Amino acid sequence: MVNNKPIVAILGGTGGLGTGLARRWAEAGYQIIIGSRTQDKAELAASELRDLMQERGVGSVQVLAMDNIAAATAAEIVALTVPFAHHTSTLLSVKNALQGKILIDVTVPLIPPKVARVQLPADGSAGQIAQNILGEGVRVVSAFQNVAAVHLQEGQGMDCDVLVCGDNKEARAQVIELVEAAGLRGLHAGSIANAAAVEAMTSLLIFINKQYKCHAGIKVTGMENS
Amino acid sequence: MVNNKPIVAILGGTGGLGTGLARRWAEAGYQIIIGSRTQDKAELAASELRDLMQERGVGSVQVLAMDNIAAATAAEIVALTVPFAHHTSTLLSVKNALQGKILIDVTVPLIPPKVARVQLPADGSAGQIAQNILGEGVRVVSAFQNVAAVHLQEGQGMDCDVLVCGDNKEARAQVIELVEAAGLRGLHAGSIANAAAVEAMTSLLIFINKQYKCHAGIKVTGMENS
Repeated sequence: MVNNKPIVAILGGTGGLGTGLARRWAEAGYQIIIGSRTQDKAELAASELRDLMQERGVGSVQVLAMDNIAAATAAEIVALTVPFAHHTSTLLSVKNALQGKILIDVTVPLIPPKVARVQLPADGSAGQIAQNILGEGVRVVSAFQNVAAVHLQEGQGMDCDVLVCGDNKEARAQVIELVEAAGLRGLHAGSIANAAAVEAMTSLLIFINKQYKCHAGIKVTGMENS
Repeated sequence: MVNNKPIVAILGGTGGLGTGLARRWAEAGYQIIIGSRTQDKAELAASELRDLMQERGVGSVQVLAMDNIAAATAAEIVALTVPFAHHTSTLLSVKNALQGKILIDVTVPLIPPKVARVQLPADGSAGQIAQNILGEGVRVVSAFQNVAAVHLQEGQGMDCDVLVCGDNKEARAQVIELVEAAGLRGLHAGSIANAAAVEAMTSLLIFINKQYKCHAGIKVTGMENS
């Protein structure tokens, strides 16, 4: 290890949000493992990220490519950014590899074609499903659902807060550190049950994006009283 | 009628949010009917509001007090600000009176004591429950769930958006007019199913209020692209 930052794996790290997060964290000096269903797919995204880091003068950061299970095994903190349709199967495949670790669940339970309509799962949220599947040995923390992938990828400052939900406060605090490393403000937002609010808000923001032709996010206001 | 603004009734208009909204709308020149379970209770709040309007130099605005059913009958637009425990019973009692009108549902499905934890009802949201109970003859529009009552009552500018959900776009637009009359920005936020996102967000904001000792709200960002 080149520094004392945890190694972060991003499962489903070849999509819009995954590559955006990988880019932000690599720039902040984290060692990154891009995970995908096959190592070949991961390698393509990793190679692009290495080129980008070279361009930006942070070529020394280590970016690896692995299949999802190997990535989950090798990393200390794991982020999950797969489409909802692959959420449960991916979690089941990495359940053993994740024991004792933090899983950052970025999944939003969008059910096409009505992605601008809130359709929460019976368990309440994707985050809650993840905690139920993985059991108490994994600290699931839900985050990043309301950040537009396009903004993360542009690598510019974003006027959007990250609401961080999870049953374990210390795990939430570690994820808030990663949120800040990505250039955003992270806020303690309660237990994993509260992931329902953030995931549902994504559908509402998709509606606003269509209605007002924008890439909307949200910001918590009124905190100056704190 | 002293002007062409619709007469607005506020059922459960004696609570924090109800008196806050009444105050805002009265100041904007709307005729207000405070509704409560009994006319006596409504009269107390109406009398206080009349005094306040006198102080603020808008004593000419008409503020009436009625029981909930009479208020729903007399008004053209009706807002509902009762605790979730009285939501269904109140709706059933005014169902006939509301036919053909707009109901602004401000209810949040908080279930004490865990009000900082998202606990959405099986139907998805209070707004959806209202639409289901009232039927297609009433256009239910969900709004104002994320606005801190204390800010409404202070009558000061508030840095909080109002996400307006409902199946009828024209009804949403009328409610957005009332939101703006109350001094806030209102946004089209999709169908009544999306009320789940806004109602759930209230529990999350309550958590943030406790965690950071503030009166939090939310604001949609990234709309400058529109």
